Amino acid sequence: MQNLNEDTITQAVIAQIADTPDPRLKRILTSLVQHLHGFAREVALSEDEWLAAIQFLTRTGHMCNDKRQEFILLSDTLGLSTLTMAMNNRKPPGCTESTVFGPFHVENAPVFALGADVANGAKGEPCFVSGVIRGIGGEPLPHARIEVWQADEDGYYDVQYAGLDQHQGRGVLFADQDGRYHFRSIVAEPYPIPHDGPVGDMLRATARHPWRPAHLHFMIKREGYQTLITHVFRGGGTYLDSDAVFGVRSTLIADWVRHEPGQAPDGTRMEIPFYTLEYDFVLNPAAGSSRGGRA
Amino acid sequence: MQNLNEDTITQAVIAQIADTPDPRLKRILTSLVQHLHGFAREVALSEDEWLAAIQFLTRTGHMCNDKRQEFILLSDTLGLSTLTMAMNNRKPPGCTESTVFGPFHVENAPVFALGADVANGAKGEPCFVSGVIRGIGGEPLPHARIEVWQADEDGYYDVQYAGLDQHQGRGVLFADQDGRYHFRSIVAEPYPIPHDGPVGDMLRATARHPWRPAHLHFMIKREGYQTLITHVFRGGGTYLDSDAVFGVRSTLIADWVRHEPGQAPDGTRMEIPFYTLEYDFVLNPAAGSSRGGRA
Ligand SMILES: [Fe+2]
Ligand SMILES: [Fe+2]
Repeated sequence: MQNLNEDTITQAVIAQIADTPDPRLKRILTSLVQHLHGFAREVALSEDEWLAAIQFLTRTGHMCNDKRQEFILLSDTLGLSTLTMAMNNRKPPGCTESTVFGPFHVENAPVFALGADVANGAKGEPCFVSGVIRGIGGEPLPHARIEVWQADEDGYYDVQYAGLDQHQGRGVLFADQDGRYHFRSIVAEPYPIPHDGPVGDMLRATARHPWRPAHLHFMIKREGYQTLITHVFRGGGTYLDSDAVFGVRSTLIADWVRHEPGQAPDGTRMEIPFYTLEYDFVLNPAAGSSRGGRA
Repeated sequence: MQNLNEDTITQAVIAQIADTPDPRLKRILTSLVQHLHGFAREVALSEDEWLAAIQFLTRTGHMCNDKRQEFILLSDTLGLSTLTMAMNNRKPPGCTESTVFGPFHVENAPVFALGADVANGAKGEPCFVSGVIRGIGGEPLPHARIEVWQADEDGYYDVQYAGLDQHQGRGVLFADQDGRYHFRSIVAEPYPIPHDGPVGDMLRATARHPWRPAHLHFMIKREGYQTLITHVFRGGGTYLDSDAVFGVRSTLIADWVRHEPGQAPDGTRMEIPFYTLEYDFVLNPAAGSSRGGRA
């Protein structure tokens, strides 16, 4: 410990954490130190670059508050979120694929009855969404908890509006006894991830755009099944091939069908054009997963 | 980009940053993504662990302010600071070794005349420090800029006292024309790095203590020479073999000699016991370094 150098420091740090009581934490930190040091060695990190990294992380931390999670944005834009999600959600064929959680979920979203308008004042063209929650054999699963959230036509989630004190474009519904769900909302549009912070600086410096293709977030929970965190993407839209957070899966792309004014699927008489989206979800039995999803 | 999985995501992210204009940034980010993903794969990072990491980094960022740099503490305690410093300060034998910068340096420390008391009210037993700044051939180097900073007898730097509006235990002096410097200060004592934040949580979880052996920080600058950032450690003290930030080098350990009341080296009549420390520094010519030190 008195004469560490660039060749011996890594093993010295690992030796210092050798007494970590939790074996999982010990394994994670040991690997982290090896990879962190391996990175610094591989690029021969300069002192100025080290300081720039310290400052970048500090700015990222200062950007985080109860409405904004810049570290999740960083993880998303570096592909770490997609990697972690993929490793933890290996599924049998036929199950709906998972994708990134994103930074705009909030706890305690309002619960709506089936058929309600979860837009709740969010601006956008009306859209009627429906489908069935199924098991892997095609059987309908009654009463699954379905949480949905989305941006408005300007590309903002409710939490991005300072002073807006109500939930908009998000809600919780429960499928009926036949596994069916339906609700009204607005059409999803592409939006840029927040890019006025360090993550935006990183995207600009790497000649990347901040846009995500239009999508609707879903989190579906049901006892006995792995929690499904996913999006449904709007087919034919822009950015499907260059999602800033690497979230698109072709099986998650669906058609938003445009209709002239007339009768909506729920019987509402629409005086303006509207859209419909139908999408079924197939859940993975919890026993089929060794790790389980996000609780 | 539409069907990324845990095997393909890493190359997809690297492809997205392929157009980064700055080749150095491109190299660094490419390596970072590979090592970050490599780490997540190696430990099979779970979603809960990923979220815990996001929360840890967020707390670390929120702990940083103009008086506290928790990310530097994290880098120090994970050995990244020592590794970076070592890679960037390879020197010919005979030069004074570098060690970690630490989080307690401040800009604009006050300038003192040689012989002044840089403690400036900081509590501790008096200590008279002196030495010569030399070149690699032993020749004295006139007029080098010497910045010194240290904790008080309670283990706190001035910046750690809320409401203290003056610098204590830090200052800038210039060596004389014979390369000599001398100043009065207080005896260095061991201190714990701040451990009431996420880094402290990490140390506790890994069964590590937060202590650093007693030391005096020096940053020595002179035109034509690599800036020297180092400490002088107090010989015989505790924690020399378990420095929480991996900073000790045996060549940087020196004797703090205790004296009974009497005449100090600068002629002051001391009514209480006092210490003396003599330490010479040998600077590395700038031409001998391909990278240079911290500007
Ligand atoms: Fe989104
Ligand atoms: Fe220190």
